[in-house]
Amino acid sequence: MLAADLFLFARSVRERAPLVHCLTNLVVTNFTANVLLALGAAPAMVVAREEVSEFAPMANAVSVNLGTLDLPQSRAIRAAVDAANTANTPWILDPVAVGPLSFRTEFALDLLDARPAVIRGNASEIISLSGGVSSGRGVDSTALAETALDAAQLLALKTGAVVAVTGATDYVTDGRRTVALSNGSVLMTRVTGVGCALSATVAAFVGIAQAEDFRAATVAAVAYSSIAGELAARDAALPGSFAVAYLDKLASLDENAFAATLVHRDIPAA
Amino acid sequence: MLAADLFLFARSVRERAPLVHCLTNLVVTNFTANVLLALGAAPAMVVAREEVSEFAPMANAVSVNLGTLDLPQSRAIRAAVDAANTANTPWILDPVAVGPLSFRTEFALDLLDARPAVIRGNASEIISLSGGVSSGRGVDSTALAETALDAAQLLALKTGAVVAVTGATDYVTDGRRTVALSNGSVLMTRVTGVGCALSATVAAFVGIAQAEDFRAATVAAVAYSSIAGELAARDAALPGSFAVAYLDKLASLDENAFAATLVHRDIPAA
Amino acid sequence: MLAADLFLFARSVRERAPLVHCLTNLVVTNFTANVLLALGAAPAMVVAREEVSEFAPMANAVSVNLGTLDLPQSRAIRAAVDAANTANTPWILDPVAVGPLSFRTEFALDLLDARPAVIRGNASEIISLSGGVSSGRGVDSTALAETALDAAQLLALKTGAVVAVTGATDYVTDGRRTVALSNGSVLMTRVTGVGCALSATVAAFVGIAQAEDFRAATVAAVAYSSIAGELAARDAALPGSFAVAYLDKLASLDENAFAATLVHRDIPAA
Repeated sequence: MLAADLFLFARSVRERAPLVHCLTNLVVTNFTANVLLALGAAPAMVVAREEVSEFAPMANAVSVNLGTLDLPQSRAIRAAVDAANTANTPWILDPVAVGPLSFRTEFALDLLDARPAVIRGNASEIISLSGGVSSGRGVDSTALAETALDAAQLLALKTGAVVAVTGATDYVTDGRRTVALSNGSVLMTRVTGVGCALSATVAAFVGIAQAEDFRAATVAAVAYSSIAGELAARDAALPGSFAVAYLDKLASLDENAFAATLVHRDIPAA
Repeated sequence: MLAADLFLFARSVRERAPLVHCLTNLVVTNFTANVLLALGAAPAMVVAREEVSEFAPMANAVSVNLGTLDLPQSRAIRAAVDAANTANTPWILDPVAVGPLSFRTEFALDLLDARPAVIRGNASEIISLSGGVSSGRGVDSTALAETALDAAQLLALKTGAVVAVTGATDYVTDGRRTVALSNGSVLMTRVTGVGCALSATVAAFVGIAQAEDFRAATVAAVAYSSIAGELAARDAALPGSFAVAYLDKLASLDENAFAATLVHRDIPAA
Repeated sequence: MLAADLFLFARSVRERAPLVHCLTNLVVTNFTANVLLALGAAPAMVVAREEVSEFAPMANAVSVNLGTLDLPQSRAIRAAVDAANTANTPWILDPVAVGPLSFRTEFALDLLDARPAVIRGNASEIISLSGGVSSGRGVDSTALAETALDAAQLLALKTGAVVAVTGATDYVTDGRRTVALSNGSVLMTRVTGVGCALSATVAAFVGIAQAEDFRAATVAAVAYSSIAGELAARDAALPGSFAVAYLDKLASLDENAFAATLVHRDIPAA
């Protein structure tokens, strides 16, 4: 993929301001909304079961994150996902901490039948979702993204979703074609919600794309976010100021800096 | 209105630290609390139906925001509003995304009978509340504040509330006397919760005012916030650093800078 | 206590990255997670009754904060605390606004039977918990920490918990031995969640300590946080930029600066 083609997705988000309906966790609502606003997208966090079926079809994409799942939210998510599917609105699944916790793991496995357009998680989460046993202890991944590559390809083939496994290296696959991306900064793991907001970013990018471009849109979202993080880390070496610099960079990253920083390669099919 | 008179409200907030009971949405709780603390007010986010009736009467004002309304919260809001009215505590309504969503729209219309002291919203929301049909798609207003001026005056006369419509130009009216304010920065729309926190700011300003001064207190709150945003935008051109600069400016804006920046005019009655 | 011994706890948090299960209020989830990440700990905000019993035993410590308590959360907290006790995982109680509000006050008094390892609150809260009548009006303390010292010692003896009363001067006691700490900055009261995040910080420090060191770990957590705040306030005099500088300082404070800034003394037994 060419940097110029990937950057087109970011430009389109800025121009078209896709409405992203987020059903996300209580820790990252604010940061996720600010990330989407920095990108030029329009976040909306409608949460009630009474409202999500009405709202999801108005959105360009729906972003589902299981970080602080409880029973009422699980019902709202199911209603939102069903309404999104009826309206042909793409939805993204972020299976936070799936694996060690039974309630959310069963719920996430059920959701796979509802045809997510993209699944984004860390290695532990993707291994768990694909049916493997991971060593995760919650939100942080104790497995390397590399070890999840087979699981990601399997999960993509089984569900028809694009699957993104993020870590020091990020992988995006539709089960046949896989891209590895090597941008980013370790500081992105020292600010809460960077990963969760990336899932909402994928939703924004997918929200302005055609279905046949969902894989490229996901690669673009991961690349854009990682490059913004990498460049922000050059200006801010500590987590408080990094979070501020990251939002600033998301709002201002231009095509030249994007192209000059991007490091990615195609992974040959196994 | 004179700048010196408007600034008196801000000074009084700093000196008296009004307790503002916020029933607000999940995205903006933190930012709203930080805005109130920057102003010198004391935020408190008591949420449970079991507690709000006990707490609202202790507060100087109650701020109600419907951004992530669900059924349990609607019951808590109703209980808080009723307790506030019994205690003669003023309460403020921020009807986020009212119009396109039935559940919250019906609830907001019901709440109008409970005599809010001030209603603050964008143009779409105010048009919807006053009985018109707007083009809003959620949290962002797709109607200009200008088009909502008639609706705002009608809503004020119908409910007895002061109504503030905010946008590039802000309008504050009691149905007869209307003020237009022209300060602010487009960056205020690139940080989530600036509008929601403004409603809580109105609550703080109203919380230290007499009932006959609620209109002036609302004008002061809108002016103070917009001027802080305008001045912060001179120091910080991107949304991450703007949010930080905005809080700093809210905490430090002095009367001279306020008076030198204020742009407002009375709108003649129709 | 020697500064070098206290700093060892902070170093151990950085090296061992304790998993802290937070059941906290809706206002401070994000800031609390960012404080823990800045310290090198691993935050996780699992909230559902369906999940907390499974998750609490995986954590190194559980942090309970009553700031936005409601009935569903009270059930989740009870389940988490029981599971923590069964697994011999220490848990920390932050009794936000206990005293003026009946629902949470009764719940907090019930929780005292569940053997918290540490209780951290302001003077009003600690006086209320120990059975006295305080003058608190909610989240801000209207009583001086000094006046709560007797109450804190009594509460510690009654519950077996270490008790920390924080204010301009902070006190940490196990009922017999008491330390006073005099670091910090008034700016720590101008950013929401600094106190709540301190309770989670205590959880992180206790999470890497032996039971006989819980008092020293609590002193270390209070000292580390207050010194970070004091040093951050030298760089940033306004609340928006202070919050950023505070996170940066939590992530970078070294032993020399810690030792050079620490002001503490033992309080003789009464």
